[in-house]
Amino acid sequence: MSFIKKMFDEKPWFGWALFGTAMTTIFLLGILAASIMERRAEALIAFKPVVKVKQLDPRNEVWGKNFPKEYSTFLQTGEMDFESKYNGNKLKDMLADDPNLVVLWAGYGFSKDYNQPRGHIYAIKDMRDTLRTGAPTNDKDGPMPATCWTCKSPDVPRMMNKEGIAEYYKGKWSRHGSEIVNPIGCGDCHDPDTMNLKITRPALIEAFQRQGIDITKATHQEKRSLVCAQCHVEYYFKGKGKYLTFPWDKGTNVEDMEKYYDEIKFKDWTHKLSRAPMLKAQHPGYETAQHGIHAQRGVSCADCHMPYVTDGGVKSTDHHIQSPLNNINRSCQTCHRESEETLKKNVYDKQDRAHDLRMKAEKHLVRAHIEAKKAWDVGAKKDEMKKALTLIRHAQWRWDYAVASHGAAFHAGQEITRILGTAIEKAVEARRELTKVLYNHGVKTDVKIPDLSTKAKAQAYIGWDMKKLNADKARFKKNLIPKWDKKAKARHEAMDKE
Amino acid sequence: MSFIKKMFDEKPWFGWALFGTAMTTIFLLGILAASIMERRAEALIAFKPVVKVKQLDPRNEVWGKNFPKEYSTFLQTGEMDFESKYNGNKLKDMLADDPNLVVLWAGYGFSKDYNQPRGHIYAIKDMRDTLRTGAPTNDKDGPMPATCWTCKSPDVPRMMNKEGIAEYYKGKWSRHGSEIVNPIGCGDCHDPDTMNLKITRPALIEAFQRQGIDITKATHQEKRSLVCAQCHVEYYFKGKGKYLTFPWDKGTNVEDMEKYYDEIKFKDWTHKLSRAPMLKAQHPGYETAQHGIHAQRGVSCADCHMPYVTDGGVKSTDHHIQSPLNNINRSCQTCHRESEETLKKNVYDKQDRAHDLRMKAEKHLVRAHIEAKKAWDVGAKKDEMKKALTLIRHAQWRWDYAVASHGAAFHAGQEITRILGTAIEKAVEARRELTKVLYNHGVKTDVKIPDLSTKAKAQAYIGWDMKKLNADKARFKKNLIPKWDKKAKARHEAMDKE
Repeated sequence: MSFIKKMFDEKPWFGWALFGTAMTTIFLLGILAASIMERRAEALIAFKPVVKVKQLDPRNEVWGKNFPKEYSTFLQTGEMDFESKYNGNKLKDMLADDPNLVVLWAGYGFSKDYNQPRGHIYAIKDMRDTLRTGAPTNDKDGPMPATCWTCKSPDVPRMMNKEGIAEYYKGKWSRHGSEIVNPIGCGDCHDPDTMNLKITRPALIEAFQRQGIDITKATHQEKRSLVCAQCHVEYYFKGKGKYLTFPWDKGTNVEDMEKYYDEIKFKDWTHKLSRAPMLKAQHPGYETAQHGIHAQRGVSCADCHMPYVTDGGVKSTDHHIQSPLNNINRSCQTCHRESEETLKKNVYDKQDRAHDLRMKAEKHLVRAHIEAKKAWDVGAKKDEMKKALTLIRHAQWRWDYAVASHGAAFHAGQEITRILGTAIEKAVEARRELTKVLYNHGVKTDVKIPDLSTKAKAQAYIGWDMKKLNADKARFKKNLIPKWDKKAKARHEAMDKE
Repeated sequence: MSFIKKMFDEKPWFGWALFGTAMTTIFLLGILAASIMERRAEALIAFKPVVKVKQLDPRNEVWGKNFPKEYSTFLQTGEMDFESKYNGNKLKDMLADDPNLVVLWAGYGFSKDYNQPRGHIYAIKDMRDTLRTGAPTNDKDGPMPATCWTCKSPDVPRMMNKEGIAEYYKGKWSRHGSEIVNPIGCGDCHDPDTMNLKITRPALIEAFQRQGIDITKATHQEKRSLVCAQCHVEYYFKGKGKYLTFPWDKGTNVEDMEKYYDEIKFKDWTHKLSRAPMLKAQHPGYETAQHGIHAQRGVSCADCHMPYVTDGGVKSTDHHIQSPLNNINRSCQTCHRESEETLKKNVYDKQDRAHDLRMKAEKHLVRAHIEAKKAWDVGAKKDEMKKALTLIRHAQWRWDYAVASHGAAFHAGQEITRILGTAIEKAVEARRELTKVLYNHGVKTDVKIPDLSTKAKAQAYIGWDMKKLNADKARFKKNLIPKWDKKAKARHEAMDKE
């Protein structure tokens, strides 16, 4: 050290230089240490409950006492009024928006009533309100099966625990009317003891089990999508027991599921006009998202639909689940540096392209149903119609798979566009087959398409008595719902006293 | 400084600590300085020519003396043997690979001979060799017009300068046989005085001019795509003077160009089977790429197809222009951190989806042409056929626009898939119209499709005398090409003496 000591003695500025560099290094090390500490602190924040929430407690407001930040953003799912170019969060009448849908679903509940889905907090209200669930008068009344409730409430795991899974699915939906009253919330995805993510619905676990995968061992990041996959998937009600089942055994591509349904000769309904054996796609959001680059790069549903939100210095997960387009700064811009305007345009471009083929597929499908009706009307036989009706079944399944999960045109734009291309192929092929049938029965001019420009005109054409359906629904809401709510209130009060 | 001095006197380790932090800081500052210096050095390397290359000198080997690195990689375009799942760089016989193409292009040159394009260095050889350019016997002989040479050689700007643009395009291709002999190279994209990028082909400048854009003022990064857009675009030969023109005046989408061609009633040829007025898409690679996210994020063609290559410490642009799949580490992985395997799978997934719709479109188009032929054969009249033939024209144009530019299924996967969806729609609609015509003429069974499983069978079906075409070509290569080459050699020798 004699050299330094000498320098120090002879040149006073040398001391200052050493001092400066030392201070700079210490400052930089300090920043590094602070950053490490902050990360550790985040990870180490312990879960200190304010109240003890019991396993299977379905009440979101009780869980909310322990997690006021998450609960307050969850409540915001009730304030949704975001409208984007194609799908926002408003309760929009989709049948009025696109009356083709009435014809495509003729004879099926969706042609009575179908609204753009809105926030989770409305799950119970919207299930009771829609004309699709009809107007039961007692707990054995339909039209829908008990299974219908499965995605709607944290009361479902409670009821499955009470009755057993298979037993829970049995009977009509009115049977659970007074039991299932709390909208989708905390208990659907979390364990109340640890607040860890938890798969609470057996159908998802069973679907993966049949493929030899145990998703209870999934990583936290995987669960940030899997909890959504409990509901945002394609499913059907299997057999007389209406056992909720995901048709994934041959794979989750549109062709795989089509083959699955064909092999078990499943149909959701017989089309009222064409008499084709139809499939109704539910909302294969999870399956379609896997075809997209975001999922393939490990981005979870929650990463974009429940982005982190900071309140002062505290970071939490936004439980106001919604379109990331409403939150571009906290969702897309976490990774992408482009402007909000550019990012929104990128999304709309994808949606525009899918929309173009969607409307082409719808045009041909509507015509195919009406041309098939004409063929039956002029005396076509079952054998003559078989080829065309199978083409209609497959074309509409593909169209529905692509369209039913709104986000898919963004999540997996090219795959959705490909699927719509195959839907168009099969729809026009069906029309080509029907042209032959019609010519063979002497119909050599194009079948006249009625005025289907409004929801009312389309519903009148397919034969719904909307006045009666609405009156029945009003009676149900007046008579049965107050009874359900009263029973539920009493049960909740009893729970508080336990 | 007395505190430090005191510390230094009393505690010997303090000196070492100060010394250590000072050295660390100096080391880090050194790295920073080196990095800044390196960047400055790169920017400051001056262009010092070894030989003086004159403006419009077409000889790549002369330019190569000044730029040995770029020239040596350019020469590698002659060693292309890369084969990927769909498109590599081999001289692959595409008609043998997919005999549908023979039927789709029946009556047009492409049904005689069509190979997967290979490296730029083969431009002259492949142009002379292909059956599409026929077997001229003198400088007024065709079949192709002089315009055909425009993308093939740096002799083209020389000839345009000598004759004038409009004059250069006139006459048959054989007229320029002895003049255009140097394959695509340096002078097509660079100015020899500065080596700056330069647009040398008037058609591109004129197409942008008609939209009010002066691309001579484009940025360097824009020019790294625009020099490619001189040739890798959709174009046609306008009027009797065969003036090279890009059909961009209504836009560059597939629908825009279709409308452009329809309005001027342009057709490339009349289909030999269906008699439809056909359009042949060239290779709208630049236009389709603009629909993709890479171009939209400012990535140029050269960024991926001519990535930087380091030779020792010197960085240069790789002039071995090829598929980035052959160079994932230097192309994709400059931005994307995923493994080569993952990135290749992402590309193939996009190509697979487009390929699925491509083959569906081809199936229906082949059948539509053959069904139309049958309709003519049984006495269909022009008026009856008009609707079907227009549908065939538009369907095949869309299919060709999507397929002709191989990279487009990756560059703009969703847009290409959308376009193929509309091609399928129109192809099956054409078949539906033809079904009506055939029924009206008493044909009530499906039209028999001949065996088209090989190129030879398909070419025999559409009526080419391949033996004669090949013999003519051999005679042309034996008789005329040596004369062309002799003249060119003499001209090059004279240039050296200038």
